[in-house]
Amino acid sequence: MVREELSSKSISIVEVGPRDGFQNVRKEIPTGDKVKIIDLLSAAGLRSIEATSFTHPKWIPQLKDAAEVIRRITKPPGVVFSALIPNEKGLDRAIENGLEEVVFVVSASEALNRENFNKSTWESLAELSSIAEKARRNGVQLRGAIAASFGCPFEGSVSVERVIEVAEAFRNAGVSAVTLADTTGMAHPLQVKELLSVLLSQLSDLPIALHFHDTRRIGLVNVYSAWQAGAKIFESSIAGLGGCPYAPGAPGNVATESLVYMFHKMGVETGVNLDRLVECSQITQELVSDRRPDQGQG
Amino acid sequence: MVREELSSKSISIVEVGPRDGFQNVRKEIPTGDKVKIIDLLSAAGLRSIEATSFTHPKWIPQLKDAAEVIRRITKPPGVVFSALIPNEKGLDRAIENGLEEVVFVVSASEALNRENFNKSTWESLAELSSIAEKARRNGVQLRGAIAASFGCPFEGSVSVERVIEVAEAFRNAGVSAVTLADTTGMAHPLQVKELLSVLLSQLSDLPIALHFHDTRRIGLVNVYSAWQAGAKIFESSIAGLGGCPYAPGAPGNVATESLVYMFHKMGVETGVNLDRLVECSQITQELVSDRRPDQGQG
Repeated sequence: MVREELSSKSISIVEVGPRDGFQNVRKEIPTGDKVKIIDLLSAAGLRSIEATSFTHPKWIPQLKDAAEVIRRITKPPGVVFSALIPNEKGLDRAIENGLEEVVFVVSASEALNRENFNKSTWESLAELSSIAEKARRNGVQLRGAIAASFGCPFEGSVSVERVIEVAEAFRNAGVSAVTLADTTGMAHPLQVKELLSVLLSQLSDLPIALHFHDTRRIGLVNVYSAWQAGAKIFESSIAGLGGCPYAPGAPGNVATESLVYMFHKMGVETGVNLDRLVECSQITQELVSDRRPDQGQG
Repeated sequence: MVREELSSKSISIVEVGPRDGFQNVRKEIPTGDKVKIIDLLSAAGLRSIEATSFTHPKWIPQLKDAAEVIRRITKPPGVVFSALIPNEKGLDRAIENGLEEVVFVVSASEALNRENFNKSTWESLAELSSIAEKARRNGVQLRGAIAASFGCPFEGSVSVERVIEVAEAFRNAGVSAVTLADTTGMAHPLQVKELLSVLLSQLSDLPIALHFHDTRRIGLVNVYSAWQAGAKIFESSIAGLGGCPYAPGAPGNVATESLVYMFHKMGVETGVNLDRLVECSQITQELVSDRRPDQGQG
């Protein structure tokens, strides 16, 4: 325990609620509400916020106001705002709108990559080099994300070798970090430990982030297991938004406030003010709730 | 990982929903519904069920039908039904009703013991010897439970030494196991690891069970941490009932179905049929829900 405590005094959080959360809320969230929530997040001490996605509105209409959100949010010094991009067009829009960081997603599963992006994993990775080059020329930081890193709803299990191949492609393209995403909440703590022990030793120069969904209520156990294995960057979502657009009340991403609570109890710093974060979570739930009292939903 | 997997191929679960859950549900649950839920729990493969509490109905009116519940439930061979007892009178009623196991609770915190039982921790432990003697004479198995093992809402932190003192008193009285209860959900995984590493080495002959509340959503992380430290017995509650009588929808105990899901994913056996357990959870939620559609509660 002493060893863990000495080597793990702080972690970093990437707040993804405004992207992964908002895109899964069925009702339209007014742009002003999105801006308000993002401002509360940065005010609570979050230093990395995935604020939106530059994806064609045909695919994700919930985030069609991406440019306006980026224009209107308060940008305190030291806070990095990023956006997800599905392709080079997304990068162009991110650059136009002055973003300093983008996230490019590739799925470790062929089937999921085709479902999401209508191309193979290797076609996506082929696009990566020109995206990386353009991002560099424009001074935009690029992060990589590997969807279905712990399993795929179509293909079932995904091999460790496959995840490492994609991670290496990202590293070779010069990304600043790679996120392992448990897109549909299939990971379990021993699997997390195993994948990270291989990845952190084989790609020790590449910062690894973890993105767990809480679909089956073990998301935070996976966070803990990843932290034990040496991970220091975690993605989470305010109020646990996200991940399950068709089941109101069902768990989405790991909730940022639960993650912060756990690490603070363990003496691990996050830089976040938990009281302000809990307040932000309550306001977020009020603003984005799918549930209307007249429906009497449980 | 190989070491853990080899040494931890199975765990035992004590289902406490019918006691810790039902006593925290505000509306009166008809006895027939309680019996139905308990029968579904044993049919799903649970082999140890804390079915009720023989406490004065003035204190816990929700469980005033304890004797009738015990009389009416199906008792499949191999399933042990237990009841919580706050004192010798409770033991007498348990014996009258033919129970084979009882649980006697003492709080590691003076303040909580006085609040719950109107006596000091040592007065409770003094009662223990006559309870243990009577239980033995009547062929009733006795388990001990230590409330506030990880902190007290009145006193704050509770020392490891204090928990060990109470656990030793239980062991000397000849209990079959001791449960460390995180009564108000204050535990965190590093604390769990520390307490267990001391306890399992100093009292290596005493089976230790863990009872975590999910008040702050990290209950299952504590379960995982305890399992890593060598614990093999876990208490949990169907549908996560319990722990928070005044906040409908707020988390109670660790949910049995989440715990079983996690261990099965990890390759650890529980003897429980997860599909039947999930079905039981859904029926339980319907039968005991505090929420009524006409109130439009979220």
